[in-house]
Formats: sequence, C-alpha cells, structure tokens
Amino acid sequence: MRILVANVNTTASITESIGAQAAGAASPGTEIVPITPSFGAESVEGNYESYLAAIAVMETVRAYPEPFDAIIQAGYGEHGREGLQELFDVPVVDITEAAASTAQFLGRTYSVVTSLDRTVPLIEERLHAAGLSARCASVRASGMPVLELERDPGAAVDAIAEQAARAVEDDRAEVVCLGCGGMSGLTERVVERTGVPVVDGVTAAVTIAESLVRLGLTTSKVRTYASPRPKKMLNWPPVLG
Amino acid sequence: MRILVANVNTTASITESIGAQAAGAASPGTEIVPITPSFGAESVEGNYESYLAAIAVMETVRAYPEPFDAIIQAGYGEHGREGLQELFDVPVVDITEAAASTAQFLGRTYSVVTSLDRTVPLIEERLHAAGLSARCASVRASGMPVLELERDPGAAVDAIAEQAARAVEDDRAEVVCLGCGGMSGLTERVVERTGVPVVDGVTAAVTIAESLVRLGLTTSKVRTYASPRPKKMLNWPPVLG
Amino acid sequence: MRILVANVNTTASITESIGAQAAGAASPGTEIVPITPSFGAESVEGNYESYLAAIAVMETVRAYPEPFDAIIQAGYGEHGREGLQELFDVPVVDITEAAASTAQFLGRTYSVVTSLDRTVPLIEERLHAAGLSARCASVRASGMPVLELERDPGAAVDAIAEQAARAVEDDRAEVVCLGCGGMSGLTERVVERTGVPVVDGVTAAVTIAESLVRLGLTTSKVRTYASPRPKKMLNWPPVLG
Amino acid sequence: MRILVANVNTTASITESIGAQAAGAASPGTEIVPITPSFGAESVEGNYESYLAAIAVMETVRAYPEPFDAIIQAGYGEHGREGLQELFDVPVVDITEAAASTAQFLGRTYSVVTSLDRTVPLIEERLHAAGLSARCASVRASGMPVLELERDPGAAVDAIAEQAARAVEDDRAEVVCLGCGGMSGLTERVVERTGVPVVDGVTAAVTIAESLVRLGLTTSKVRTYASPRPKKMLNWPPVLG
Amino acid sequence: MRILVANVNTTASITESIGAQAAGAASPGTEIVPITPSFGAESVEGNYESYLAAIAVMETVRAYPEPFDAIIQAGYGEHGREGLQELFDVPVVDITEAAASTAQFLGRTYSVVTSLDRTVPLIEERLHAAGLSARCASVRASGMPVLELERDPGAAVDAIAEQAARAVEDDRAEVVCLGCGGMSGLTERVVERTGVPVVDGVTAAVTIAESLVRLGLTTSKVRTYASPRPKKMLNWPPVLG
Amino acid sequence: MRILVANVNTTASITESIGAQAAGAASPGTEIVPITPSFGAESVEGNYESYLAAIAVMETVRAYPEPFDAIIQAGYGEHGREGLQELFDVPVVDITEAAASTAQFLGRTYSVVTSLDRTVPLIEERLHAAGLSARCASVRASGMPVLELERDPGAAVDAIAEQAARAVEDDRAEVVCLGCGGMSGLTERVVERTGVPVVDGVTAAVTIAESLVRLGLTTSKVRTYASPRPKKMLNWPPVLG
Repeated sequence: MRILVANVNTTASITESIGAQAAGAASPGTEIVPITPSFGAESVEGNYESYLAAIAVMETVRAYPEPFDAIIQAGYGEHGREGLQELFDVPVVDITEAAASTAQFLGRTYSVVTSLDRTVPLIEERLHAAGLSARCASVRASGMPVLELERDPGAAVDAIAEQAARAVEDDRAEVVCLGCGGMSGLTERVVERTGVPVVDGVTAAVTIAESLVRLGLTTSKVRTYASPRPKKMLNWPPVLG
Repeated sequence: MRILVANVNTTASITESIGAQAAGAASPGTEIVPITPSFGAESVEGNYESYLAAIAVMETVRAYPEPFDAIIQAGYGEHGREGLQELFDVPVVDITEAAASTAQFLGRTYSVVTSLDRTVPLIEERLHAAGLSARCASVRASGMPVLELERDPGAAVDAIAEQAARAVEDDRAEVVCLGCGGMSGLTERVVERTGVPVVDGVTAAVTIAESLVRLGLTTSKVRTYASPRPKKMLNWPPVLG
Repeated sequence: MRILVANVNTTASITESIGAQAAGAASPGTEIVPITPSFGAESVEGNYESYLAAIAVMETVRAYPEPFDAIIQAGYGEHGREGLQELFDVPVVDITEAAASTAQFLGRTYSVVTSLDRTVPLIEERLHAAGLSARCASVRASGMPVLELERDPGAAVDAIAEQAARAVEDDRAEVVCLGCGGMSGLTERVVERTGVPVVDGVTAAVTIAESLVRLGLTTSKVRTYASPRPKKMLNWPPVLG
Repeated sequence: MRILVANVNTTASITESIGAQAAGAASPGTEIVPITPSFGAESVEGNYESYLAAIAVMETVRAYPEPFDAIIQAGYGEHGREGLQELFDVPVVDITEAAASTAQFLGRTYSVVTSLDRTVPLIEERLHAAGLSARCASVRASGMPVLELERDPGAAVDAIAEQAARAVEDDRAEVVCLGCGGMSGLTERVVERTGVPVVDGVTAAVTIAESLVRLGLTTSKVRTYASPRPKKMLNWPPVLG
Repeated sequence: MRILVANVNTTASITESIGAQAAGAASPGTEIVPITPSFGAESVEGNYESYLAAIAVMETVRAYPEPFDAIIQAGYGEHGREGLQELFDVPVVDITEAAASTAQFLGRTYSVVTSLDRTVPLIEERLHAAGLSARCASVRASGMPVLELERDPGAAVDAIAEQAARAVEDDRAEVVCLGCGGMSGLTERVVERTGVPVVDGVTAAVTIAESLVRLGLTTSKVRTYASPRPKKMLNWPPVLG
Repeated sequence: MRILVANVNTTASITESIGAQAAGAASPGTEIVPITPSFGAESVEGNYESYLAAIAVMETVRAYPEPFDAIIQAGYGEHGREGLQELFDVPVVDITEAAASTAQFLGRTYSVVTSLDRTVPLIEERLHAAGLSARCASVRASGMPVLELERDPGAAVDAIAEQAARAVEDDRAEVVCLGCGGMSGLTERVVERTGVPVVDGVTAAVTIAESLVRLGLTTSKVRTYASPRPKKMLNWPPVLG
C-alpha cells in the first residue's frame, strides 16, 4: 500500500521529519511518500497561508503519478481536506482529525497544544467541521512559531509541556493532542509531565489511513465530496518557476 | 467611498451583473469596483473550485491598487473571507453572511435557496463559521447550475421560487435569502410566491460595507485576523498568462 | 427617511443623548425622532422594569403619528422588540442586536460590557433570541448603574475599559460592544485600552435601519410577527397623567 | 398554604376553569386563589398581547393582599415569569415549564400541542429560557384560537388529538403536554388516541408549587431575580377604569 | 401511597439516613420504604461500581413484593434509571434529576456539589441524558469520599460549603444542588455560606414522586421505556450468599 | 497482539459470527479471542438487558486470564464501555463508536441502521457520550429483532437496505453504519442499494484496536477512567450455575 503524506509548508526539512515520523508508524508493506507543495509559504500559520497551502497541496498531489491508496494532509488546523476528497476517491486523512479521533478512544476529553495563538481558531474550526469538537476541552498555544520549533526543539518542549499540563489541570483534558511538528522526544516529555496519553497526529493518521484501505473503504461521492463538474479554467494550473 | 466587489467566478458576464446589482444599491458617493479573479474556474460549485477561488480573489485584490474602503466577496458559501481579513485592514463582507445577518432583522428564521445540492454543505459551514446558523431554518437547492442560471434566468426562477415556498411552508422560514446570482426579476417573483421578505446578498453586502465604513470600523487584528507574519514564499504569486 | 429612536428609560436627558448619538450617525436626509416612553421607570435595570418598558415603548410608539420608516429600540438587553414587530410593518432594530450583528463582521468573537451584573442574563437571553449568541465570548458588567453613568461619565469610563480589556485578554473577544448609554469619549477610551474595534449599539442600529429601508425590506408577517388578531381589550391603553 | 393562580387572559370564564382545574389537583389544606388580570386582552395569542399580559399579571398580583405562598402563571408560552420572580420571594411556577419539567420524568422526549401556529415560537423560546428545550421533540399547533377552544371544546378535541398523535408518530414524542386551556375530557381523549402520558400544565404547576413550599424553597435573589432597585416611576401603576 | 427509596450503596447506615431524610419530606399518608441493594459495592464512586449498582437496584426492586406506587433511585449521577423505567410502570425518579429539575424553578442556573472529582463526569452525563444540563453552571467536587462523609460529616461540611460558594461566585450559579448523602445540618450551612437556595435530591425526589402519583401519571411505554421483550436468561438472576 | 472481542448477548452462535468477522479484518499476527458473557440475556435489545450485559461483559473479561492487548465491546448502543475502561489499562473500543469514528473520515454525515426502534435512543445516547453525534444524520430501525437477523438473514437484508437508502435520500447521510450483527452479504447489498460507503462496526473496531496498540496508547487514568478505589463488595461477583 502506498500513502502520500503531504506537508503543508514548503520547507523541505519539515517534509523529511514528517516522512520519518510517518514511516516509523507504518506497517510492513506500506510505502510512505512524503510530498512538499510546489508553491506556498515556508511555514503555515494563519488563514492566508493556509488557504494557499490548501490549493498548493491539491495541485501537488494531482501532479503526482497514480496509483496511491490514501492521502494524509499533514498540517494542523489547515484548510483544504474537503477539496482533496472531491479530487480523489482514495481516503483522505487530516492529521488534526486523526489525532482528535484517536484521542477520543482514550479519554472522555482531549486538548490540543499548538504553536501560535493565531492558529487556535483554525484548529477549533477544523475540529467542528469534522464533527469532533464536542469533547475538545481546549486548544492551547505554546507561543512558539513553526520554524522555531524546527530550529530549537529543546527550547520548545518546555513551553509545550507547560500548556499540556495546564490543559489537564485547568481544562480537565484527559488526553493531549500535539498540534506541532515532529520533534524527537516531545511526546515522551509531555507524557512525563502530564501523566496522560499523548497523541501525535501524523502517526495516528498513518494507522487510520492504513485501516481505511484495509477495510476497502473510499470517500463517499454522493454529495459533499462529489467529483468536480467539468469546467473551463482560467490561467490554472499555474506555470511554476 | 470605494468598495471592491469581487466575483468568485472567472466569467466576466457574472462580474458585470454583480457589479450592476451592487451599484444599484450603493449610496450616492459610493464607487463600486467589480473585480474578476485573474485565475480559477468559470463557475464555482464545490470545495476544490471554492478553495481555488478563495486564493484567486485574495491575489487579485492584492494586485488592485489602493486605496479602497471595503471589500465584498460575492460568492455564496465560498471559502476565503478570513484570508482577506488577514491581508487587509478595511472591512470584508461576504454576501452569504450579509444576507443572513440582514434576514435576521426581518423574521425569526430564514432559509437560503441556492443552485446545486453540492453547495448546500458549503453554505451551512459558512453560516456556522460566521455565527449565523442558529436561526437558519434550511438551505435548499434548486438544482440549477450557476451558468445555467446566467443563460436561462426565466427557467431558473420557477425552480427557485418553488424551493423558497417549501422553505416557508415546510421548514418554517420567515425570510428567504437568495444564494444565486443576479437574475432580474428573481426577487420580485419569490416575494410574490412566498409572501415573505426576500434578501439578496449583494445588495445587503453593499449597505453593510457602507455602514461599517461610515462608522469608522475596521477588522480586528488581535488574533484570528492578525496580518500574516513575514515569510519566504515559494513560486508565489504565480506567473499568469 | 424618518426613524423613531425609542429610549426605554423615562429619563429625558437619556433620550436626548441617545438622540444626539443617533443623529450623528444618520445619513443626510434621515430624520431622527427620539422618543421617551410615556410611563415606566427612570432607568431600566432588570426584568420587571424591562417588561414595563417593553409595553411602554409599544404604546408610546403606537401613539406617535405615522408615517415613519423604521423603529430603533434603544435599550440594552430589553424585552419587547418582538411586540413592536407585530404592531408595525416597518423594520424594528434593537440596539443589542445591532451591535452584535455589526461586531460579527469585524472579528471572530465579541464581548458586551454592560452596567450592572443583574442585566447580564437579560443581554444573554436577547442575544440568544436573535440568533447572535454563538460568537459571544462573554457579557461583562462594570458595576455602574445606568443613572450613575449619566451623572459621572468620567468615573464610569475606567470601570468599563477595565472590563473590556479583560474580555479581550481572558475571554478571547476580538471586538467589544458597549452596552451602556451614550457617554462622550467612551468609545475612544476603550479602543485605546484594548486595541480592538468597539461597537456602539445606537449608531450601529441607525445604519442598519437605514439599510433595511433603502433595500425596501420590511418585517415578515407570516408567523411570529403577524399582526395581532382583533381583540376586546380591558382597561387598555391606560389613562395617563 | 395559599397559591395564587394568575390567568393571563382577561376573560373571567377562563379564570374560572383554570381555578377549578387547579383546585382539583390541590392537596387538602391548599387554598387556590384564581386571579384575572385587571387590564389586557381577552385572550393572549402573540407577543404584543403576551408582553401586556406579563405586566398586567405583575401589577394584579402586586395589588393582591399578602400573604400567599406561591404564584402560578397560567398561560402557555407567555412572557413575564422572570418579572414576578424579581417582585416576590415566594416560588413562581409557569405552567409551560411545569408541564415540560413533569413530562421529562415520564419519557425521553415530549411534545407540546398548543392553539395557534403563531404561539409556537413563544413556547419554544419559553422552554429554552427555562433550560427545558433539549428533550422537546416538537411544538405543534391545532389551529384553534383560545376563545374558540372555550366556546366549542368538543370540536377542538379532535384537532388537538390529531396533532398529539402526529407528535408521537412523526416527531417521536413519548409524552404530550397540553398547551391549551382547561377543557373537560381533553386529557382522556388524547391519552386514548396516542397511548402516551398526557400532562396538563395547570395541575402539574399546582403540585410543583406545593412541593417547593413544603420544601421551604424560595426564589434565588443573588442575580437574575434580585428585587428591583428603588426607582422613580412615571405614570405607573396606571389609573384603571 | 408507598414509595420505594433505593440506596445504590450496600452500606445499610446510608440506607437508613436516606430513608429518614425521605420520610421527613413525605406527606401524611405516604409510606417510605428504604431499600439496600442485595449485592454491590459499599459505596458507589465510578463507572464500574455504578453499573453494578444499576443492575443491583433493578434486581432488588424486582424482588420486592408489589404493590408500590413509585421508585426513587437515591444515588447521585448513577446509571440505571432507564432500566427501572422499562421494568416497571410506576414513576421512577432519580435524585440527580429531581434536584436539578427543582433548582431550575428557583434560579436561572444551578451548580451541583458532589463528593469525588471522578464522579463529576457521571453527573454531567446524567444531567444531559435527562435534558437538564442547559442551565447547569458547573459540577464541583469537594474531594470527600462517600464513606468519609458518613463517618465525619462535620469535617465534610466545610469542604462542601467552600465549593458551593465558588459555584455561586465564580460559575454564576444561582442555586446549589447537594450531590452528597444526608448529612444533618449540611443544607443550613451551605445556605448560610452562599445565600442561595440549596436543594437536596432525596427530599426533592419525594415531592416529585408524590406529585406524579397524585396526578395519575406513569412512565411512557411507547419506545425508550417499553417493557423488555421475553428472553431466555443465562445464569440470571444470581444465586446470592 | 491478542484482542478480546466480547459479545454482549449470551447466544454462542452470535459470538462465533462476530469472531469470524473480527478475524477476517485482523492483521497477520493478531489473535482474536471471541468471548460470550457468562450471564445475561440471549439477545440485548433495551436498557435492562443492556445494563445487565454491561456488568456481565465486565465480569467475564475480568475472569479471562491476562495478558491481552485490547478489548472490543461488540454490541450496538450498549452500556458499559466506561466500566471496562476503569477496570483495565488496555484500550477499549466500542463498535458503535468505532463505526461512527470511521464513517466520519469518509463523508460529511453518517446514519446508523439498527434492529428495533427501541434501541434507537440507546445508540443516540452512546454516540453523544463518545462525542460523535454532531455529524450523525439519523439512527434508523429496520424493525427486525436481533435473533431474527441471525435466523433469517436473507429476509433482513431488504429491510435494512431500505432504511439505509432512506437515510441517504431523506436524511442526507453520506455514509451508512450497520448497527446489526454479522450477516454475510449484508454490506455488499447495502452498498449496491445506496451507492455510499458502508461501515461495519466489528471490523472497524479491530483496525482501531490494532492501531491503538501499535501506537502504544492506553486508556487515560487521570479522572473519568481512574481504576476503582478498593471497596468491600457484598455478594459479588456472583456464584454462577
């Protein structure tokens, strides 16, 4: 089975670390294909960049040669999953939703800890759109920008663990979802600090994508995710560099 | 005062009819500037096309020379308004939200009548995101594609009036919002058929944009709509035509 | 166009200041007619006084000679708007709802700062009834009674600005609605303190009432706001003075 | 124990039948005092009449010589209960809420059958305000005006039983609340037709008022229902007749 | 009238104190029959113990000789009420629901103060299932285990009064429900500390059960609480001691 | 990895067919252990039987020799999952929740088709408790009792496919969850009839349980699912046949 894992940022090192994380969770026989969008922002932290990433991921995946069996959109709280579901029949799994869905099997409530305060509303909207917000205790920001997390993971871990601990104590979360890239050692540190299960979106998404493929399930095409109707397109797709 | 009115479709005739409708509702002294996106689908009817339109509208408005006082996004149930709010300080008014917000002053509940069934979920999500879904009695589809409405408005009016009447009788709507382009005579026909007030999104948006400008109000920049942080962009904006 | 602006308190000086505020926001050609109820409490701060004001406003507006084009009910969180909508065909705009509806175009969430703690529940109910509570971050009280605000606006401003700042920081509001009379300088002071847009209900209501009239829209009469059926009335309307 | 039962209509025959119904449900030792408002509409069927009844009931009960132990407001979906709670310390029970609260002990969901379609929204709002709407399956109208029910109860029973049956079959109600006056035989007929428990608001309210008194419980005065602050009143209370 | 009051704990002294409390609230002519389950945990504080208590109460009540007129399940936040409603036609009243339902007649919001933090989620779920959660301001834990409350009521009162005070001040509760056994003097102490009405579930349940019986109302049998279908049972009921 | 799959009915043939279904979905290296409860009803269709099954499954799993890596509770809409989570650290997956959670990755909304009308409320409550009800379009009953499905699967398929088709057309479901045992050919038939993805709870649960184990995740023990405190138990566990 081949699973595309699409980074939303155009920074290649992030694609690599997401790919490694995904590969670590994959079953034998699953090929993980990490993808960097062919245009867009180096890091995605807000609506403009997220809308651009949405369409960049769609175009980049369209340009990738079939066959593949599932697509993972590896950005936290990003736009666009619905568009991928229209364009393809294979299952599409967003890591925000994968983490929340997994967390709900482990505790009555969960919280998300993310990077910047401005991404909190995006994550809240995404959880709502996926029908997964009822048991969300809180979405908290560590205040660390995405590229900072990449550059100095050691420093970031403390800020994230602190917010996770407050989610458990103040917001009554029973599980924590990590809404920030693939730092080594992060999960262990947050488990240590909080004593609750910690879910990483990328690895959760891999197991869910594999499960959907194994069960032979594909995206419903009756209404919301029906294939686009044939249209005349103006100046699209773009001519790139 | 100058208000940009951005069509989401790349079909120029739709831009013209939206512009005419907007101009008809504008106060003396207000200049309406209709805009067609520089890339994207001829008509927007689903998530992929809507995400593309979102980013196309943003780039097209960015390329438009300042100053202007407000932006209207003239598409029903489309993505992207949040991105415009990040990129600009002037008020941004989405016609879906303008219609619903206006309808709520006229009756206890409202319904929306739109083009295709597949756009119903997009409108529902947009109303939710704007905090305007509590009094939405239903979103109903006439089954007429956008370009068909343009080509044969006479035929479309009946299908739309029929769904409006069912919204009032079966769903207990007290006001109807028209979620389909600027057909002459449409509003009158639906009022006749249903006996309830009928709100058109484009004209409602013009009065709201004017009001916000007159009151000196601009988009809040503290969190969700803060300006994007400086970023390295890959292959963006695109080289067109 | 002539717009009646009905104070809910029987204190004439409040009517005057509301009238001045409304006139300041009106378009050229709009006549603002401030009205004081012919019976009721000098200030309205609770359910009993609010129910009495509701019926007093209705009777006072009924006694006012037509024609007029719209009615503004200028009280924060008060009962009665639905009754006015039954009695008249012209649009009725409540300032609580006008402020919230306007705020939603400027930020993802808004808070209201009002006078006394006991009026908080009234405002919450009114926002719910208008379908505008989903994006309300909080309703906060400054602890200053209505007449105190009139008498010593200088002292009041600090208490109000303090609550507004807490709404933005603690409750994550992105816009603030002022639910307290027309103090000069108040809006500026709260903008300065919080850095977010501040919406005043009276001026917002004037622009909305004007917009509805310009768009030719009137109250829906199919169900909730149908005209009262003919009835025998006992001892009503009252003999005054 | 003495319980005031306040009719909301000024029609004395309705007061009598409500009083008889209440007396039939009262315990030995409970004195039922039926009250007709001293001003207002002969029957209450909409917001204007209901707001007027709200204030008329308040003034009429205020004029009634103490002591009494509880107040029942005997109108379905009417405004005003919160005002009575401010004016008095003794428990106030609204029959709409009494019926719903009782129904919830008997089945998972309940429906209300009322008189006219225009009163449906009033009942829905009242149930929401009382925190009792989550298990309300529907509010249905028989189409019979209040005075018609009084005049020709035989004819009314069929229309009401028909709506009750549809509530059970189509809306999945498990209990029916009767939101229409005191017709003899009505309850029996609806039980027969539907096979589910049928709750009458007046008798339910009597048992609840008695229970609250026996338990020594009175209205909370900390915030929403705090006694009105001392105020100068203009032209109020009114000079009657 | 005979009312069974079923303790959920197998500790007989708790049954006695619940019985005494219930008897104190009963009308003349009502016989209170306190019942201890024939199997299960000495105190119920969590899901496993609560599920076991649910089935133990059902079997113990089934073994009790008829006739009786109503059943009270006297445990806070426990499972099982729906099963009793299937097995019997007479009204079943859960004390969690009785307290909340009563509290809603006294203030706009209520809070519950219970024993351990782990029972908070159980109470929240129970209030939701009963349609009574909309006006619940909070459920707070005193941190005192059930048997500790029995053994040293003096020490428990302070912890409980403290949480009640915080519910009123921080969570804006207007009424407090006591979700912990029958300590003498507890209610008085919490009233003193908070100044709001305090509702005890056992006494509230007695008056509600009496009311339902007096009104001739029984459990609806159309769907959720229909009698169990005839089934072959394996190894059940159990052979005890 | 060893996964216990606990039937809720005491009918061994159902255990066998569930076991076969589970084994068919398991990865190589996963051992599926089907379990029949040691007491309870031959089929579970309502609250009494479901509460009994809840405690029977708990006691039966407790009696099963460790080690095992996950537990699946294979009953649709049944009580008890929370108790298993308290008693064990390994992940517990309820098939109702597994199906809904999986369905949400495939379409915007899903419906459940179950056996009898009386089990509809149980499934609705279970979906709410799991935070999975927001995108549930409907729960529909085929009217076939559980044992009838076992005995004559051919006849049952039509009734189920009919309700599935109505869910897609009338309730706007985009995915269907089958809430009824393991009939061969059922899934295929419903896919054929409706054209939407069909999710079976048992197979979905197997992939989820495997995923949780592979990710090293276990049940959160901080609050709701903390291990039971040590207690004296009366007459429990039961002495069986």
